[in-house]
Amino acid sequence: MQIDGKQYLSVWFENERVKMIDQNKLPFEFRIAEYSNYLEICDAIREMTVRGAPAIGAAGAYAIALAAQNAPEEKFRAYLRTARDELIATRPTAIDLRNGVNYVYEQTIKFIPDYRHSRQVAILAAREFAKKSIDDCYQIGKIGSEIVPQGARILTHCNAGALATVDWGTALAVIRIAHQQNKDIFVYVDETRPRFQGARLTAFELEQEGIPHTIITDSASGFYFWKKEIDLVITGADRICLNGDIANKIGTYEKAVLAKEHKVPFYVAAPFSTFDLTTKEGADIPIEIRDEDEIKRINGTYLANPGSPALNPSFDITPAKLITGIITPKGIFKPKDAARQVQI
Amino acid sequence: MQIDGKQYLSVWFENERVKMIDQNKLPFEFRIAEYSNYLEICDAIREMTVRGAPAIGAAGAYAIALAAQNAPEEKFRAYLRTARDELIATRPTAIDLRNGVNYVYEQTIKFIPDYRHSRQVAILAAREFAKKSIDDCYQIGKIGSEIVPQGARILTHCNAGALATVDWGTALAVIRIAHQQNKDIFVYVDETRPRFQGARLTAFELEQEGIPHTIITDSASGFYFWKKEIDLVITGADRICLNGDIANKIGTYEKAVLAKEHKVPFYVAAPFSTFDLTTKEGADIPIEIRDEDEIKRINGTYLANPGSPALNPSFDITPAKLITGIITPKGIFKPKDAARQVQI
Repeated sequence: MQIDGKQYLSVWFENERVKMIDQNKLPFEFRIAEYSNYLEICDAIREMTVRGAPAIGAAGAYAIALAAQNAPEEKFRAYLRTARDELIATRPTAIDLRNGVNYVYEQTIKFIPDYRHSRQVAILAAREFAKKSIDDCYQIGKIGSEIVPQGARILTHCNAGALATVDWGTALAVIRIAHQQNKDIFVYVDETRPRFQGARLTAFELEQEGIPHTIITDSASGFYFWKKEIDLVITGADRICLNGDIANKIGTYEKAVLAKEHKVPFYVAAPFSTFDLTTKEGADIPIEIRDEDEIKRINGTYLANPGSPALNPSFDITPAKLITGIITPKGIFKPKDAARQVQI
Repeated sequence: MQIDGKQYLSVWFENERVKMIDQNKLPFEFRIAEYSNYLEICDAIREMTVRGAPAIGAAGAYAIALAAQNAPEEKFRAYLRTARDELIATRPTAIDLRNGVNYVYEQTIKFIPDYRHSRQVAILAAREFAKKSIDDCYQIGKIGSEIVPQGARILTHCNAGALATVDWGTALAVIRIAHQQNKDIFVYVDETRPRFQGARLTAFELEQEGIPHTIITDSASGFYFWKKEIDLVITGADRICLNGDIANKIGTYEKAVLAKEHKVPFYVAAPFSTFDLTTKEGADIPIEIRDEDEIKRINGTYLANPGSPALNPSFDITPAKLITGIITPKGIFKPKDAARQVQI
């Protein structure tokens, strides 16, 4: 992605370190965070320095590669297994994390006890996983842009952009490429409480690309549906089940219900790493409940009545029946067919 | 309403001044604002020191009474007319403001040129309007509590509480009285972006009354509908049309669509002052678009990408067909019948 004219990835490996754009600081400050230990990356994932399902998948893959570099030979396997389990436990909903971590882990342990080779393989596998994510997202953009009509007014929720992946984005890859095709699009950006990934990150990416857009509060989209000013909804996903149900950022389900009410197409865009071929349906996906302070305070200052509790589910489930199609690097599929198509 | 054990109204007239609880400061600071001039009240309404359709109706009524005290006799009628027009223009969507201002204006000018009598009548009429609002809201609570099942988990949006009225509230009057009836209710409070009236004011009122509740982000209600943890939705209204369409705080429409999808009853509670017998349907209601900075910043600090625009519609329209019933002081009516019933 371009940031002030320079090319960046959201996360990469360089000089024995994992580097990433600090997404808690954007767009107010541009900071590259650097990590030399997988435990630091566990914290970075929990604190959402890196967020977005495919991006944390890549961060997890690189974290296992770091763990392989740091693991003592006499406890190589145990160290790596601990790293794998701790990384996967940092955030329970997005499946890309598990997929990225497991992929690198499996490749790496194959070569034990040739530790030198294991370590090399770990880095190569992590780079391969991240590179695949970039290629996937570009394909999603190319394929998905076909469903964007000329002049479309598109609603998106949260940030499914280059920042949420390694590059290009998922929903935003479609939007980027439709814009490059001069489709004269306009994007409604849900601000995405409680952490404002839409207002901060999606808006920032769209401004960088010169794509016309406006920020709205999460509950204002209904008003624009009612005014017939939304033609298309595209979001990312944190996990896609066998039956086509998806988990995504809290609020996605409400957009899908509104899209149904207004007969507006609702698309989900996701790379291979977001598919969970072991989970049958949405009700089986664990939903992360984050700290109530994310809702009640900002920068330490209360926004809400201090004496009241708050509930902060970070994701919700959108059932397959509300999804028009899932945009994958292999094509656009009906939700119920997507996992099977991706598996082949 | 009880605040820390003391009895308050949201707005009242005392010692030649209009006094009100400053709703921008609550719940972090308890401040009584005092005004001796209608122009100051215009600012207070615009800046939302007082907000909530019935409360600004009462504030407008008292403001005209103040204007009558201050009007020079040689320009009494012109001064009062200007005050009326300026007050009504402060916020275009809620109809209670127009109803409150016009009621006191009409009563007052009847007695010109007996200015002493006009001035007395102005105060009496404003007090009568505010008193009627209190009585209306208490009746709404009593009548509305009948539709609250034992153990109901109720979703409400924005603040339709004692603060939003003169006392008791509309949606919250129903909730207050259902709680007093030991119905073992639980309230999901939408935080209500961009100004957090739910997280600040509704949560505060519920805490003061000891009513079990939790704050959620506006877009999390879909998750709790999906989990079948919402049995009933009750909101207030800023205007009710002849055909039963309503305007209310931005986001209300989304709740109504979700309630329909989940076959959950969706009720609107409103006093007589909220009915607009001159407006046929929702599409005819002017929607106030407020400053984008309400979305982009908080206490001067940016929450959103500074280079991106934001659109801030303050209200949306919920069509009659999505409303199960309108709870009024005269009974609960089908939306299409409510205006006619109230008129009789």
